[in-house]
Amino acid sequence: MTRWTRPLTTLLLTLTLAACGSVPALRGSGDLGVVIERASGSVQVVDNSHRQALYRIRGLGDLSHASLVYSRDARYVYVFGRDGGLSKVDILQGQLVARVMQAGNSIGGAISSDGRIIAAQNYTPGGVKLFDAETLDLLADIPAVDAHGQVSKVVGLADLPGNRFAFSLFEAGEIWVVDASQPRQPTIRKYPAIGKNPYDGLASSDGRYYIAGLFGEDGLALLDTWQPDAGVRRILPGYRKDDPALPVYKMPHLRGWSLAGDYAFLPAIGQHSVLMADSRSWQEVAQIPVYGQPVFVMADPSGRRVWVNFAFPHNDTVQVIDVPSRKVIQTLKPGKAILHMEFTGRGDQVWLSSRDDNKLVVIDPHTFATLTELPADSPSGIFFSWRAHRSGM
Amino acid sequence: MTRWTRPLTTLLLTLTLAACGSVPALRGSGDLGVVIERASGSVQVVDNSHRQALYRIRGLGDLSHASLVYSRDARYVYVFGRDGGLSKVDILQGQLVARVMQAGNSIGGAISSDGRIIAAQNYTPGGVKLFDAETLDLLADIPAVDAHGQVSKVVGLADLPGNRFAFSLFEAGEIWVVDASQPRQPTIRKYPAIGKNPYDGLASSDGRYYIAGLFGEDGLALLDTWQPDAGVRRILPGYRKDDPALPVYKMPHLRGWSLAGDYAFLPAIGQHSVLMADSRSWQEVAQIPVYGQPVFVMADPSGRRVWVNFAFPHNDTVQVIDVPSRKVIQTLKPGKAILHMEFTGRGDQVWLSSRDDNKLVVIDPHTFATLTELPADSPSGIFFSWRAHRSGM
Repeated sequence: MTRWTRPLTTLLLTLTLAACGSVPALRGSGDLGVVIERASGSVQVVDNSHRQALYRIRGLGDLSHASLVYSRDARYVYVFGRDGGLSKVDILQGQLVARVMQAGNSIGGAISSDGRIIAAQNYTPGGVKLFDAETLDLLADIPAVDAHGQVSKVVGLADLPGNRFAFSLFEAGEIWVVDASQPRQPTIRKYPAIGKNPYDGLASSDGRYYIAGLFGEDGLALLDTWQPDAGVRRILPGYRKDDPALPVYKMPHLRGWSLAGDYAFLPAIGQHSVLMADSRSWQEVAQIPVYGQPVFVMADPSGRRVWVNFAFPHNDTVQVIDVPSRKVIQTLKPGKAILHMEFTGRGDQVWLSSRDDNKLVVIDPHTFATLTELPADSPSGIFFSWRAHRSGM
Repeated sequence: MTRWTRPLTTLLLTLTLAACGSVPALRGSGDLGVVIERASGSVQVVDNSHRQALYRIRGLGDLSHASLVYSRDARYVYVFGRDGGLSKVDILQGQLVARVMQAGNSIGGAISSDGRIIAAQNYTPGGVKLFDAETLDLLADIPAVDAHGQVSKVVGLADLPGNRFAFSLFEAGEIWVVDASQPRQPTIRKYPAIGKNPYDGLASSDGRYYIAGLFGEDGLALLDTWQPDAGVRRILPGYRKDDPALPVYKMPHLRGWSLAGDYAFLPAIGQHSVLMADSRSWQEVAQIPVYGQPVFVMADPSGRRVWVNFAFPHNDTVQVIDVPSRKVIQTLKPGKAILHMEFTGRGDQVWLSSRDDNKLVVIDPHTFATLTELPADSPSGIFFSWRAHRSGM
């Protein structure tokens, strides 16, 4: 062998191994999560087995009110940005793989039960667009125009079984259910006059009930999708009537509602209390006093405890309600501006985002001990990959 | 370059690329499943997005009554063989990575809520063993010996939140709850005299209730783990008293029970009916007549329909019950000896194993259309990776 061939073979070997090594190590995606970094237009991929960050992906636009859904194989997430950007991120490679600007102002989305269709809900122009989950090609555009020709902002988009989606029209006060089995020719069933200014909506985890919160009046609107001809009925009327309405510092998130076991837990708008209702009769069971105006009201996966975070100026605090006794049993101060909480699928950890301390806090929900803290850039939503397998996400 | 260096570099390159190429392509594990091939001691890894088989892994011993659980990252499955073998299989590489013979005769297992502990339940010798999920090293051995010194077969092992496990002792008629937070020093709470011959058990998906079916008497035993001091109570007493007991051709599986929405659905032992009970009061609501003796009674993820398969000689048939009307709305003949059914996490498909036709049948549960059939060698249990994220599996 001549002297210069050895370096050549070494070089080739090195280059080849480098190409080989650039493929991330094989790993399951069941313990991964994605965290929105709202100020920097980036997301972090995290691993909840080893409680560490794996990747940061940049260039996702305005993520100030962003959410995301998982692909059915839990390899990709679809991030819905406030600026109307829809981004597809490969969480195993830590790469942005597709991005479209689909509206001027967007507020979230959903994925169909078969995983083939991404639906985005938009403020400007109002409406819902359907995209191919593989390519992000536009499949259908559903303008939110009511019988009077008025355009509405769309809120509360949720997936239902059978490739259906439900959502609410803020200005029109309507709930629409779209059947996207034929995604290029979706069919729509409209429920008008459901109440004034629905501001968010959610589906129960089995996809049976769709509930819209009403900002313009007391109570909530409930659609039982097993009885589509029975229409929408009002539930929990008058739950705000006993207390003088406080100024609302932050619109509560209905998605933070918990339909856990026999009860539903929800934030009482403008009040320092969590509303507890019977999930069969939808009658109010209790109002549980808490530290501030609740934003997210989230049951752990066992339904035994409900965690609550709060609007400014109480957003440095998280409280934990014991369901059997209906009492606050723990008050935590995990960091400044706690914006979101996410449990692992089987409840061994809860992750919190502290926007103003630029960190994630991982807590053992059984002992309340802090397991670790991780740096993050103004984190907001945290989404673990168990969501790939649940409806109503 | 001399003439012989070129082949050398080529060889090195080829070898390196081959090593590189032997790594399976990166993919998420959210749409994978594992099918037991009972006669050949093998399992198949399948992909429910593309509805195809990916790998067959052999050498897992006697799988005639096998089940499995998923690791928290959904990369591995732990297969519990009838011969006491515990096998760890990498489903992304299609390889057996660890195997121990942990008992003489075993009947299933569970994984702790933090994913670190594998528990195996055994007939011979009776008891439960705890293993490290990473290495399969033995952590603890819990003999099932009652106060009289009698050894029992262990049945109905289920995981509960907080790294606990519940199981039943067949001969002793006891339920035990093990706290494995310190897996080398587990603590045990015993509930004696719960009824005669518990033959299987299950936990509700939130991990609150543990229910044991009683073979030796009428009714079932219920433990509310939120009220551990309240003890075990009898539910559904007398559900077998109205009909003359038929010979039982196959012990029903409680794991096939459905606690769906407001109701629990369960096989009535020895009878051609499905029992429907209120999931709050545990009072019987209806007995729904079906085609044979039910084995698995499984709700789709929406809880809208319940699928039922049957013991011999009716095991070529599957029936579908509509929950609101409590009536059978569909009778299917998908193949000979239908042993198991598994829904995808969001209910767009149901997979059935036809042991005697050596095939898997994939059905659209909304339309009942057969989407595809795949060859399999005497298939029995089918397990999709959404199980990684649920309790009570």
